[in-house]
Amino acid sequence: MSEIQPSVSYSFTMRLYIENKPGMLAEVLNIIADHKGDPGAVDVVKVEGNYKVRDLTVSARDEEHAQDIVDAIKKLDGIKVRNVSDRVFLLHLGGKIRIENKVPVDTRDALSMAYTPGVGRVCQAIAEEKEKAHTLTIKENSVAVVSDGSAVLGLGDIGPEAAMPVMEGKAMLFKEFADVDGYPICLDTQDVDEIVSTVKHMSPGFGGINLEDISAPRCFEIEDKLKEALDIPVFHDDQHGTAVVALAATINALKVVEKELSDLRIVIVGAGAAGVAITKILLEAGASEILCCDRQGIINRSEIENLDSSKKWLANNTNPDNLQGPLMDATSDADLLIGVSGPGTVPKEAIEKMADNPIIFALANPVPEIMPEKISDIARIIATGRSDYPNQINNVLAFPGLFRGALDARATDINEEMKLAAAHAIANCIDENGLGEEYIVPSVFSKDVVRKVSSAVEEAAYESGVAERPKP
Amino acid sequence: MSEIQPSVSYSFTMRLYIENKPGMLAEVLNIIADHKGDPGAVDVVKVEGNYKVRDLTVSARDEEHAQDIVDAIKKLDGIKVRNVSDRVFLLHLGGKIRIENKVPVDTRDALSMAYTPGVGRVCQAIAEEKEKAHTLTIKENSVAVVSDGSAVLGLGDIGPEAAMPVMEGKAMLFKEFADVDGYPICLDTQDVDEIVSTVKHMSPGFGGINLEDISAPRCFEIEDKLKEALDIPVFHDDQHGTAVVALAATINALKVVEKELSDLRIVIVGAGAAGVAITKILLEAGASEILCCDRQGIINRSEIENLDSSKKWLANNTNPDNLQGPLMDATSDADLLIGVSGPGTVPKEAIEKMADNPIIFALANPVPEIMPEKISDIARIIATGRSDYPNQINNVLAFPGLFRGALDARATDINEEMKLAAAHAIANCIDENGLGEEYIVPSVFSKDVVRKVSSAVEEAAYESGVAERPKP
Repeated sequence: MSEIQPSVSYSFTMRLYIENKPGMLAEVLNIIADHKGDPGAVDVVKVEGNYKVRDLTVSARDEEHAQDIVDAIKKLDGIKVRNVSDRVFLLHLGGKIRIENKVPVDTRDALSMAYTPGVGRVCQAIAEEKEKAHTLTIKENSVAVVSDGSAVLGLGDIGPEAAMPVMEGKAMLFKEFADVDGYPICLDTQDVDEIVSTVKHMSPGFGGINLEDISAPRCFEIEDKLKEALDIPVFHDDQHGTAVVALAATINALKVVEKELSDLRIVIVGAGAAGVAITKILLEAGASEILCCDRQGIINRSEIENLDSSKKWLANNTNPDNLQGPLMDATSDADLLIGVSGPGTVPKEAIEKMADNPIIFALANPVPEIMPEKISDIARIIATGRSDYPNQINNVLAFPGLFRGALDARATDINEEMKLAAAHAIANCIDENGLGEEYIVPSVFSKDVVRKVSSAVEEAAYESGVAERPKP
Repeated sequence: MSEIQPSVSYSFTMRLYIENKPGMLAEVLNIIADHKGDPGAVDVVKVEGNYKVRDLTVSARDEEHAQDIVDAIKKLDGIKVRNVSDRVFLLHLGGKIRIENKVPVDTRDALSMAYTPGVGRVCQAIAEEKEKAHTLTIKENSVAVVSDGSAVLGLGDIGPEAAMPVMEGKAMLFKEFADVDGYPICLDTQDVDEIVSTVKHMSPGFGGINLEDISAPRCFEIEDKLKEALDIPVFHDDQHGTAVVALAATINALKVVEKELSDLRIVIVGAGAAGVAITKILLEAGASEILCCDRQGIINRSEIENLDSSKKWLANNTNPDNLQGPLMDATSDADLLIGVSGPGTVPKEAIEKMADNPIIFALANPVPEIMPEKISDIARIIATGRSDYPNQINNVLAFPGLFRGALDARATDINEEMKLAAAHAIANCIDENGLGEEYIVPSVFSKDVVRKVSSAVEEAAYESGVAERPKP
């Protein structure tokens, strides 16, 4: 992990016309190796005259690196580069999800049952008893994935159209991991009340609302108002999904370094949606010393009147000794640093000041607060938000199972009890033998996770009194 | 067609325990025959002791009829009815559509490309050039099917939850017939401005808006305001879908009876969304004498100041001789009657007063203005909105192809030129040889229809200057 590795996120496929003489493909592969690119599939497409036509896929570190490789190959004698396709863009052409009919509507009888006139009786049944919408429509299994595009990944305020690929991706994860039908809805307003009324008005057909990539502090107010207005779960994943998985990772990391949560000095870098939610869930779980840092340094109570409502809350509930100063002061002797801010916001020097066996969660996406390669010699445990490093603190460990459990219980809310249940269920997916520096959270592809999380969440929903489905 | 026939819309499956002795199944089938039920599949489930267990499916005329059949069978000796399942309700359990991923997200590489970090580059590309959302997201192929539940089928104002099965059905038809990804959105408000702002705010990820089952006159204002606000097609199907197919049916019916549109006296029963739209499209197509009737009788200009804006428009643009009076006066010597009102609103006497070779489109759903059985001896041509009679004036002939063509052209609107093109394309799906009293519109299952409609619509979009996709 000493340098940044090529990734499929920057992979491309070239169509190469390669002259038919010995050693030509090897030359191409040598060029790629010289440039530290990572070659993938090499297909023969056809033979045309004196040329063999091949499609060659290569992973690069970034777009510039990819271009360097292509340029170098173009300079080879006897090779023509005819087409370069960016694999990520290819994957996104036309979108990543589609609607599917559960039964075909290809006969007159099917049409009479699924649509008019048969459907009229189903409508009447729901009109007489609204609750029946939960069983006779997609409400049973559907979640709106809602964003206003104001805080997308680490990219910031890029607007609703540009947010769509992330929301579609989220819908894919809902489907892949929990068989939940998520549908992306990106809003062309960033006004709190307009967002609340829009989501409220469009909610009758949905079984849940997953808020996503909405900037702080608006996200807190939006979530609070929607929770108040609706009788279906409203869940801001950037806050609570991240918080649930961060707590699960913390629980397991502490087993590795043999420390107790209540003894830790914890630094949270970033006081946005995720930072606030992680702070809250860690406090609930027993943490006592948390220092939250924003761009101005450690959040404290000296000029509390100038802080917005969520930072005021942080000032009042963290930083017991009311420390002031920059991030570098906060990390001094810290045991756990959780970054939920932006790319490159944490310098190596800040990590060097931490206590023994430092644990660093650098969760900014796609570029972390500090690249793991830079601190691999200092950190005992490193986690990121990326899928191409170990210990991925990925919300996908939490939200599919959380919503699966909530929908199965027909819960009216996803409450604190359900979130804590989810965090413990995720942590418990790794047994003591498997646990280690590079394995504090289960793989997102572990089949166990959703099953364990959803049943823990469902049980917590019944126990906390928010489940409306009669217990089977 | 002398009496109402059993329909799969009222079909049910019984689980019968039938004693093992000769002639028992025949007895059951005799009972069904005596009651004029229509038996379907007869499956053997298992043999249990002295009983053979069978699932027997029967179509009935209505729920009461179904119950009569079940009750009669229950009285038979040696038969136990253990379970009666309504097939239409069974079909609706859990909803009728689902989300599907175009590619699986079951490996780390797939996750890195479809979600973070790879997705970030796609987001950035759209942030730099918003138009790219049309090719890199589901916007390219997605239509929101939006209703406020205020005028659902012939059932009226049943609310958003009860409207969902229809909107889901509509989404199924979009998928089945035109491979368009429709998603049902039912709104919990019936306020014009709230509907407009909700739809506007949620529109960025959609390629089109299909408004559905919104009551008049609000639907006119909602559609107008949304068309003004959005740069994607907004189409109120109850108005324009119905109008397009009604015009197609009229064109072909006139070929059968050998009359000219400009010579006709046309009566429109119902001055709601569909009535207004049909009137407009018939006038555009060359009709000269149209009488529109609402519950008060023929709409006229005598007390025009008391009419709402859409009826004012009708008063000013129809009824050239300013006739006043009840429906019965309007149908006198009428050539074509189009009902778009409610169940049973047209008495047989009104039909008896029509001119020779009367054409009746009784389009109320699910129960027509007059049942075809009642006028089969008078009418030359009858069409309904139902799938279980000939000549179904079904919007499914229009809206899938209209949206397919509009999306393919990346049209900013579905305009008059595109609607007229669609009507002629539908009419032309039947050649002169095939045409007849019971075949004035093509089957909704004819593979030709969507293809012909969409290419006519796409061409009209380019010709009328609303297509934004560079012509291939």
